[in-house]
Amino acid sequence: MLFLVRMDVKIPADMPVALADEIKAREKAYSQDLQRQGKWPHIWRVVGEYANYSVFDAESNDELHAMLSGLPLFPYMEIHVTPLARHPSSIR
Amino acid sequence: MLFLVRMDVKIPADMPVALADEIKAREKAYSQDLQRQGKWPHIWRVVGEYANYSVFDAESNDELHAMLSGLPLFPYMEIHVTPLARHPSSIR
Amino acid sequence: MLFLVRMDVKIPADMPVALADEIKAREKAYSQDLQRQGKWPHIWRVVGEYANYSVFDAESNDELHAMLSGLPLFPYMEIHVTPLARHPSSIR
Amino acid sequence: MLFLVRMDVKIPADMPVALADEIKAREKAYSQDLQRQGKWPHIWRVVGEYANYSVFDAESNDELHAMLSGLPLFPYMEIHVTPLARHPSSIR
Amino acid sequence: MLFLVRMDVKIPADMPVALADEIKAREKAYSQDLQRQGKWPHIWRVVGEYANYSVFDAESNDELHAMLSGLPLFPYMEIHVTPLARHPSSIR
Amino acid sequence: MLFLVRMDVKIPADMPVALADEIKAREKAYSQDLQRQGKWPHIWRVVGEYANYSVFDAESNDELHAMLSGLPLFPYMEIHVTPLARHPSSIR
Amino acid sequence: MLFLVRMDVKIPADMPVALADEIKAREKAYSQDLQRQGKWPHIWRVVGEYANYSVFDAESNDELHAMLSGLPLFPYMEIHVTPLARHPSSIR
Amino acid sequence: MLFLVRMDVKIPADMPVALADEIKAREKAYSQDLQRQGKWPHIWRVVGEYANYSVFDAESNDELHAMLSGLPLFPYMEIHVTPLARHPSSIR
Amino acid sequence: MLFLVRMDVKIPADMPVALADEIKAREKAYSQDLQRQGKWPHIWRVVGEYANYSVFDAESNDELHAMLSGLPLFPYMEIHVTPLARHPSSIR
Amino acid sequence: MLFLVRMDVKIPADMPVALADEIKAREKAYSQDLQRQGKWPHIWRVVGEYANYSVFDAESNDELHAMLSGLPLFPYMEIHVTPLARHPSSIR
Repeated sequence: MLFLVRMDVKIPADMPVALADEIKAREKAYSQDLQRQGKWPHIWRVVGEYANYSVFDAESNDELHAMLSGLPLFPYMEIHVTPLARHPSSIR
Repeated sequence: MLFLVRMDVKIPADMPVALADEIKAREKAYSQDLQRQGKWPHIWRVVGEYANYSVFDAESNDELHAMLSGLPLFPYMEIHVTPLARHPSSIR
Repeated sequence: MLFLVRMDVKIPADMPVALADEIKAREKAYSQDLQRQGKWPHIWRVVGEYANYSVFDAESNDELHAMLSGLPLFPYMEIHVTPLARHPSSIR
Repeated sequence: MLFLVRMDVKIPADMPVALADEIKAREKAYSQDLQRQGKWPHIWRVVGEYANYSVFDAESNDELHAMLSGLPLFPYMEIHVTPLARHPSSIR
Repeated sequence: MLFLVRMDVKIPADMPVALADEIKAREKAYSQDLQRQGKWPHIWRVVGEYANYSVFDAESNDELHAMLSGLPLFPYMEIHVTPLARHPSSIR
Repeated sequence: MLFLVRMDVKIPADMPVALADEIKAREKAYSQDLQRQGKWPHIWRVVGEYANYSVFDAESNDELHAMLSGLPLFPYMEIHVTPLARHPSSIR
Repeated sequence: MLFLVRMDVKIPADMPVALADEIKAREKAYSQDLQRQGKWPHIWRVVGEYANYSVFDAESNDELHAMLSGLPLFPYMEIHVTPLARHPSSIR
Repeated sequence: MLFLVRMDVKIPADMPVALADEIKAREKAYSQDLQRQGKWPHIWRVVGEYANYSVFDAESNDELHAMLSGLPLFPYMEIHVTPLARHPSSIR
Repeated sequence: MLFLVRMDVKIPADMPVALADEIKAREKAYSQDLQRQGKWPHIWRVVGEYANYSVFDAESNDELHAMLSGLPLFPYMEIHVTPLARHPSSIR
Repeated sequence: MLFLVRMDVKIPADMPVALADEIKAREKAYSQDLQRQGKWPHIWRVVGEYANYSVFDAESNDELHAMLSGLPLFPYMEIHVTPLARHPSSIR
């Protein structure tokens, strides 16, 4: 079951660089782990913005919320979720 | 080069059903042809709306505009394009 | 799996009253059938508006889209879907 | 008398963790007390957001405001209230 | 129990003048009847717009919706309701 | 001459409580003084929000601005003013 | 007492040209009459739009509404009014 | 003196094709004439939309409005103008 | 060549009062100097807001930007500019 | 391949002036280097705002994102990108 997710990152300007770097490193590992499990099949950068559009594959809304709220950057992001269904014209 | 595209379909209420059906049939064929060419790798229905989120793979902005403006439903859609770049956390 | 759904009805001013009444009657029967099945556990009128907030219980995004796009009033509604998860403070 | 209430939590980034935890614990107890009284029949998490949609059952606007403004997180939330009425298609 | 209500009137441009006048006359009578009953204590014109801000005094959300949806102009209005509570600084 | 005024209070999170309390006490006295003079005939709390809708009765725009900009909370509020006229359906 | 007024003209596409021309001629005469009386001291075209920003000088909200609702184009315009006060830096 | 101009074309669905084609042909000639005079140095298609971003070079606001309101498609477009100044980092 | 300019002042809450007063004093002198030169023919307070609507008379976009960016309060304001043209109904 | 880019600069009020000046100096050099390479053919100031509209010429979305995210002011800007295509009326 797929969901389109937009995430906009807003790290406070006064966060120490070392702390920000540590959170971003954990974010990257967390994301790549979910990608390898097939739970996060797509992540793209929005050109010109500190933001991404992602596609998640979750078995339920609860599983999706658990994945998103577990993101190390979750406290510093605005997230919007759009549920997706199969399109009748899709060849897949 | 990838682009996220949202399309909202607004067919006028007074369009004859036969005409609408004919346009939709051409739209489906047009879409599936581009999907098979790899130019339109993803199309998803937005749950509850007569709308889709799609990903296009185009070699240029001009090629993308040609594909979108050639859609049989183009005169009856609102379309918004977001250019995408590779995300540094992507494992692809 | 629960979803909050807002539906705003926009019936064209020039639709014949008899046709509108027939569609509304089918809408009511369709809604009550899903309510009895437990798929549509809540429907509330938004005070002062020709709109409702509803809660749907679906097994998947695809099932939810099928239920919504099958509404007799679907061509005359704006619909927005918000996926819901269990809240950690909920006593249920 | 039912009301749909959306609450978005915005805790300042510089609030000490211990203080935030203490407020959240009081919030949870306060919410569960009202749920047990039947005053707050539903609370759902908005997937991907630090936000909830809730349904309150109040005898008056004044009672609802008293319940909402007494929330321990009230100073750190944006709240929007929509009054609900019985829907003519509801089977309840 | 008070509610602030904004109503924006959008009569279709092609409605015959006689019909519009007849609906407006019924609207006025309906409004004045509710005003006399004390259910609609205030109605003000928004300067420069075909719109009003009103205050309603209803015993419940259901009663308010019944009053609003019974307005002869209801099918031609956008209505937005804001529930009001007593303000602690009010001298009333 | 009446005006509908919406005020949203945004007190900075780091303002000392004693200072905030002192400003709020002056605000209340200021408001009640204008209410007693008949200049501020209505003040209602917006349910669930730290905001109010008020009706002011001023002899001119300049007088209204003087009243509003003299509010002790003025530096911490967003204010929006809507001029009101007599409504032709009003029985007053 | 001054008010800034923005007017956006939306004449229906199917209005006969002769009728539109007749209404516009009456609008111009009406406007110039109020300009000569000093009630409508400024009218400017918004560059690129069928819209104007105007300044009105009225003795009351009621007088302003009477002037605006009497515009021959009133049924075909969206109007927004902003009340103005003397600015403390103005040299006038 | 440069201005950025966005134009969104909204031709009514019921305009006869021959008439639309005739207006578009005049629009193209009008545009190319101004381009050749150097008054309209840039015109770009917004990808996926029946819209353009253009840069105009006008000697005054009045000249710009005359050019824009003279467009054959002017009655069928939404236009928004942003005045531009020299940027201190520009090498031109 | 006239421009309508809206300025919203947002002075940081933690700016020392003496500094704010000094900037405001320079702003007033700067404004009155331009008013006396005829470059800033109108400045009005928006009722209830720390904002103004002004009309500027500039020979070019560059001159206007120089005047606005030279405002002592420029770093603390949101400014929006609308270019104005002569209105065909104006008697001036 | 052209893109219209709007950049709004929001430097925190508490950034030391020397640091801000140093970043702005690097921004200017970075911009002028890309302008000389032909990658950033246009940069214009939005009149009255600390913002610019620019046109970039990039071979891909990835190249564009690299150029934008490398801007010394990138952490302090809101950026929005619109992909552009050739317009059929363009004489270029």
